[in-house]
Order: sequence, then C-alpha cells, then structure tokens
Amino acid sequence: MTTTTDPSSTIGELTIDGDRLWDSLAALGGIGAYDDVATGLVGVRRLALTDADRDGRDLVVGWFRDAGLEVRQDAIGNVFARRAGSEPDLAPVMIGSHLDSVATAGRFDGCLGVLGGLEVVRTLDDAGISTRRPIEVCFFTEEEGARFGTDMLGSAVAAGRIDLTDAYALTDRDGASIGEELVRLGQVGAGPVPMPRPPHAYLECHIEQGPILADHDRQVGVVLGVQAINWWEITISGRAAHAGTTPRGLRRNASLAAALITVHADEMAASGDYGRLLTTVGRFEVRPNLVNIVPALALLTVDLRNPDADALDRARTDLRACVDSIAERTGTTITVRETAHTAPVDFSPTMIDLVEATADRLGLSHARITSGAGHDAGEIAAIAPAGMIFVPGLYEGISHNPREYSTPEACTDGINVLLHCVLACAEQ
Amino acid sequence: MTTTTDPSSTIGELTIDGDRLWDSLAALGGIGAYDDVATGLVGVRRLALTDADRDGRDLVVGWFRDAGLEVRQDAIGNVFARRAGSEPDLAPVMIGSHLDSVATAGRFDGCLGVLGGLEVVRTLDDAGISTRRPIEVCFFTEEEGARFGTDMLGSAVAAGRIDLTDAYALTDRDGASIGEELVRLGQVGAGPVPMPRPPHAYLECHIEQGPILADHDRQVGVVLGVQAINWWEITISGRAAHAGTTPRGLRRNASLAAALITVHADEMAASGDYGRLLTTVGRFEVRPNLVNIVPALALLTVDLRNPDADALDRARTDLRACVDSIAERTGTTITVRETAHTAPVDFSPTMIDLVEATADRLGLSHARITSGAGHDAGEIAAIAPAGMIFVPGLYEGISHNPREYSTPEACTDGINVLLHCVLACAEQ
Repeated sequence: MTTTTDPSSTIGELTIDGDRLWDSLAALGGIGAYDDVATGLVGVRRLALTDADRDGRDLVVGWFRDAGLEVRQDAIGNVFARRAGSEPDLAPVMIGSHLDSVATAGRFDGCLGVLGGLEVVRTLDDAGISTRRPIEVCFFTEEEGARFGTDMLGSAVAAGRIDLTDAYALTDRDGASIGEELVRLGQVGAGPVPMPRPPHAYLECHIEQGPILADHDRQVGVVLGVQAINWWEITISGRAAHAGTTPRGLRRNASLAAALITVHADEMAASGDYGRLLTTVGRFEVRPNLVNIVPALALLTVDLRNPDADALDRARTDLRACVDSIAERTGTTITVRETAHTAPVDFSPTMIDLVEATADRLGLSHARITSGAGHDAGEIAAIAPAGMIFVPGLYEGISHNPREYSTPEACTDGINVLLHCVLACAEQ
Repeated sequence: MTTTTDPSSTIGELTIDGDRLWDSLAALGGIGAYDDVATGLVGVRRLALTDADRDGRDLVVGWFRDAGLEVRQDAIGNVFARRAGSEPDLAPVMIGSHLDSVATAGRFDGCLGVLGGLEVVRTLDDAGISTRRPIEVCFFTEEEGARFGTDMLGSAVAAGRIDLTDAYALTDRDGASIGEELVRLGQVGAGPVPMPRPPHAYLECHIEQGPILADHDRQVGVVLGVQAINWWEITISGRAAHAGTTPRGLRRNASLAAALITVHADEMAASGDYGRLLTTVGRFEVRPNLVNIVPALALLTVDLRNPDADALDRARTDLRACVDSIAERTGTTITVRETAHTAPVDFSPTMIDLVEATADRLGLSHARITSGAGHDAGEIAAIAPAGMIFVPGLYEGISHNPREYSTPEACTDGINVLLHCVLACAEQ
C-alpha cells in the first residue's frame, strides 16, 4: 500500500469506477439466475445457504482476495474482508450488507452494498490511498429470512441479539437446519460471535426498495432509521369435510379463517388508525388443498411494519384480538407464533449528518428517509454508530422482484457517497 | 348357478351377510391407508390412477373373479363385472360406485356401493338364486375429481357427457395425464365408451356424507336427486413486491384478492339469497409464498353447490361480478376457468318409489333426501333409470375425512335395500 504525495487534494475528487461496479453486479447476478415467468425477465434466486448462495459467496470472496483483503469468517457464516490501516490496532470502519436473496429477486438488494464496499477498496487501491483505520467489507448470512424464517439473522448474531445456538436450530420448510447447511457448504468460520470488538463505524448502501426518492427526483437517500418489523406465523386447525354435503354451520373452515385474517390485516393498514402500518400476508397454504374438501389446516404469515413502535404494538394487540374472534366464529383453533420482532432503529445522528454532508459536497440531491425494509445496519446499530445510503429504484421502487432496477448512474452516486463517508470515518 | 325350489318365499326374507360386507370394507380400506395427523386416525388415500388405486382395483377384481363374475373394462378404465341372467340378452341391472378416494378419506365413500354390489352377488350365489336379467357390479374411474380436477369422470365418459379424448388429456398437478396413467397402470380396457347399451336400471348405495339421516334418526335415505355442482379454478396475477417498502396503494396483492374472493363466496352462502347454496374454497396457493413478499400469483378453487339450478346460476353471475370488482380494486388480473359444471339431477320416480317401498317392506325407517355430493348415479341417470340409497354417517355425517364412519348395522340395512331393489329390477 502506498500513499500519494498529496492525498488530500486527490481524495476530494476521488470517484469510484461505475463501470467496474456495474460489471460486478452483473456477474454476481448471474449466479442463481432463473427465468421468471411472471415478468418474462431473468431473476435471481439465491436463498441463504443454498448451493447458489455458496457459489455467490465464493465469487465475491475470490474478488476480496484478488483485492488483497484478508478474509475471515465467523461461526454463523458472516464474512469479513479486511484492508489494513496505517494504525492496524484501531477499530475498523465496516462496510456491509448481504448476498442472499429472496426467491424472486433482482440484482441489487444487498449485493450493491457488498460490491459497493469492494469497489471502495478497489478505488482506494487504484489511487494508492491508505487510511488510518482498517476498512472491512463484509456480508451477513440470511439477511432476507426467506429460507429460515428470521431476517437479519447473521448480523443479529454478530451484534448479539440472537444466540448462536438458537440460530443453528432454525430450519427451512424441508427441515434442514442452519447449522447443518453451514457445515454442508463449508461456511462455518472460526470467528467468534457476537463480534468481540465493535467497528468504529458501520456504513451500508442499499437500493431504496420503495418509490420515495424517484417520486421526489432525489439522487441519494439519507436514511434516518429502520421501521419496526413483526412477523407472525399463524396455524389454523379446522376439520376436513365434504364440500357438497357439510352444512355451513357444521364447518370448521381453515381456509375461510385464514382469508378473514388476511382481509382484516389489510383493512387495518387501510384504516389509517395505526399510522404508517403496512401488513402483508406473504405465505398462505391449506391442507389437503383439494377443490371439494373444506380445508382442515391453513398456515399463513403476517408481516407488520411501522416506523412508530407504539402504533405497531396497538396493531399487534388488535390483530391478535381479531384472530381470536375469527377462531371463535369459524370453530377453528388458531395459534400464533412470532418469528421476528425488531424494534424501530434510529441511526446515529453523527452518521446521518455525515451522509447528508457528503451528498451535499458531491453535489447530489438528497432526501431524508426512513427505511421500510429491515437491514443489517439496523442490527449493527446496536453496537456501533451506523448509517445508510439509499439509491433510488425505478418502476415505483419495486423490489423482491426481477423488475428491481437502479441505473448505473444512481449506483455510482450512492457508492461515491459511501466512499467519502468511509474515508471520513477511517481518518477519525 | 342353481335355483331353489321355491325362490319367491326365500327371496322375501333374503338378507346379506353384514359381517362379510364389513370385512371387505376393512380389507379394501387397508389399501392406501395412512396415518392422519389431524385426526390421529388411520385414513385412506387412494387417489384415482395411483399405484394405491391400482392395488385397490386388483383386490376387488380378484373378488369379482372369485365370485364367478365375468369382468370387462372400458377405455376409461371403468370395470364391469357381470353375473349372468336367465335371459342373457336382456339389458342388465347395474350396481355401481367408485373405489378412488380423496387425499384424506375414510373407508365408506364409494367403496360401500361397490362392495355392497359384490355382497348382493355373493348373497344371491349363497342362496342359489338366479335372476331373469344379468346383474353387473361396476366401479367408475376418478369419481372424486381429486386428482385430475373433473369429478364423476369415468361415469360421465360412460354416459357420453364427456368425450374420451378430452378425458385422456386431463392432467394432474404434476402434469401426468389420465391417458398416460391408464396405460402405465394397465387399466385401458377394450370396452367402448360411451356405453353402447344402457342398463335396464342403475342402483347405487352410498354413505350420506351429511348429518340429515342421523339428525332425523332414519335408517335409510331415499335419494331424490343430486344438487347442481360448479367448480371454478381462479388464477390471480398480481406483482411480487417488498412487504416493508411497497406502499399499499402501489400493491397488486394476489393473496389479498384471493382472500377477498374466499370471504365473499362464504358471505354469499351465509346470506340466504341463493337458497341452499354452499360455497367452498378448497385450494388456495400463492407464489412465491414467502413471509416478506407481496404474492405475485394466487390460485384458488371455488366449489358451488345448489339443489336449485336457477339459484346456482344467480350465484355464479354475482360471484363473477364480484371477482371482476376485486380484480379492479386490487389491480390484479383474474381469470376464471370452470372445471366442472353439472346440472341438478332428478332420479327416476319409479326408482325413488322402489327404494322407498323396499325400505318400508324391510321395516326400515327412511327419509327422502337430495344428495349434496355428486355421484356416478347422477351421470348414469342420463341414460337409464337410476336410484340411490343413502346410509347414515356418524359425527355429523363427516366425510372426506378419516372420521367418516357408518355402523355395520347401517351398512347392512342399506345393502339389504339394495339387494331387494336389484332383485325387483332384475325380474322386470
């Protein structure tokens, strides 16, 4: 690592290589690619700890090594790639996000943050810039929760919110546990969890996954925090019965009970009584799932989100009461299991100000925004000052869909802000 | 075959062997048996043209041959087992039902009618009674519609309502066609369809699958006909989107649209505005079926039944309008495909009177009843005088469930009525 003769003037004008970043996103997006029937596009399906996820990890770790980074892995499979600083004992500046995806994803969610971190390192190398603090680019395991049911899992274990033993025991729908899958894929590192020493600062750049920046024609989002998230898994036991002969009054209809909950959850979000509450029934299954049988069993999930923790709690209480009343009305037995419950996160005011000032300095328009999605930054915020940068997405900000798209220019802008935030933190 | 010296007096007191019938039901119920988690009972899963169905067919055909019956099979896999009459050229009296089951079944549905027919033959053999007309015991393919989506399929092909080519092309959820499965299992016979010559009369004994006979404490049901049945397969195309970031107004939520249809269909049945309408949403699936993704696709089925064809038609029109309005409200695209539509069936008054008079003569209490379920008799009624006998079920008449149960006494009563109705018809 060498330094230029006048690093300060060079650093002020430093920009990342947007084409190189874009090429990295495209190459990673080819792993787990599938033909999406609904959109006619090529989507990404790289669920956590599948073979595709392992292939994606291998590609990115290879890039890390090519960039001369020192790679280590912790016991939940999180990967940290370190670029030395001139004062190696100082806590590092960490740049992170995730590589795992939902089943119907685009190329940006998570990957932009990780490959953006890599691009920051490559840019510093090209410019021959060394920093006072080390820089660590990392990715966390199972951020999506799409396979094992608990999102932000790897970062939550790293930050100490979720116990490693509990995490290992989580299973997917086929009964495979995280512990088994980590071993199968060779992704269990020796690094301890929780992280023994918090980073000096944590930064994450992510696609917005919503329409706000595009609607307001802003180039960069300055993220204030993450809304509260609550996931319910609801199991309904009714009674299988003949569709043509069982009078309505004798039915214990699991599909009807599940549909009533689905409609009610939506009405709660529409009512305005719970602030900015969003509700989603993403899973819905019935058994035996045959045309002429009143279903005996139903399983559904409800995803509740709200930037206001009190309003979310009111919604939880009211939905719970509604579930009980639907059980009584339909003669079914309903059990509710909370699979995720994260409080709203407020990012460090210092980091918010840094992101905003950096965008200003780079001449990029910006808006303050609260994240609708959970992010690893929300977990790491519990142990270190954390900040996030959003880049706008097209098509009403659609995400978790192959149509997810951010332009090369928008990605470049976001990672340039990341670069200069990292540089500022790394000299502190 | 021999005749007794005074058949008329013997015939009047003739009764079947209830224990033998019960043993046959138990033996057949062991094929496709499975442990049902919901009820803790052993249920029956013998979907049409599966290996289990083939095993069940083989067992029963073996019994037919043991009883000296001449077995033939037609091109849709229906099996006919003939007991010669003293005037072999006369059209036979046919006793039929089905051996296939739904995925969560008991032992009685269908099997009672077929094994009851076998028991009639065995009883006549034991008593040395020959009849003027031949008697044919038969079972029809895919009565349930639980695998290939169209119920009463084999009898509908035999009666000429459904074309053989169309039937062969029907596929299950894995894409296997009826034509392929018939060939794979060696169940394609040389017998032509539709049936070239209708039977003289058709009789079917079946478990009621409803609570009416038990509620009124009657031993036998005299079936007047079968209510109209209409099946819809509804496909909803929405758009996959992130559960935490996509504002409600920008969603095209397929699970919500499907739930709204489910609730509305139930409200129609509850309203009383459509007579004795029953509605059931038995299938309900969403894609990608993940907790934090607004579903892009939903598939559901609606089963509509009504003894009143006009009221059913009004319900179809109103539900269709409701589906269109839900598509508009939710921004989804909804397609509706009718997979079954059978008109209500009125059984022959002569056969109704015969069943009623026979129950009277045997000293059995009875009630007139319209069938809530479709039956093969409803198809054969289009080409021959048909009649049905119901036996009561316990537990509110629950069926399509391992709890389905009729007592040995009730089964014996029903098959005794069948025996004497067959004897009467066979002498005509």
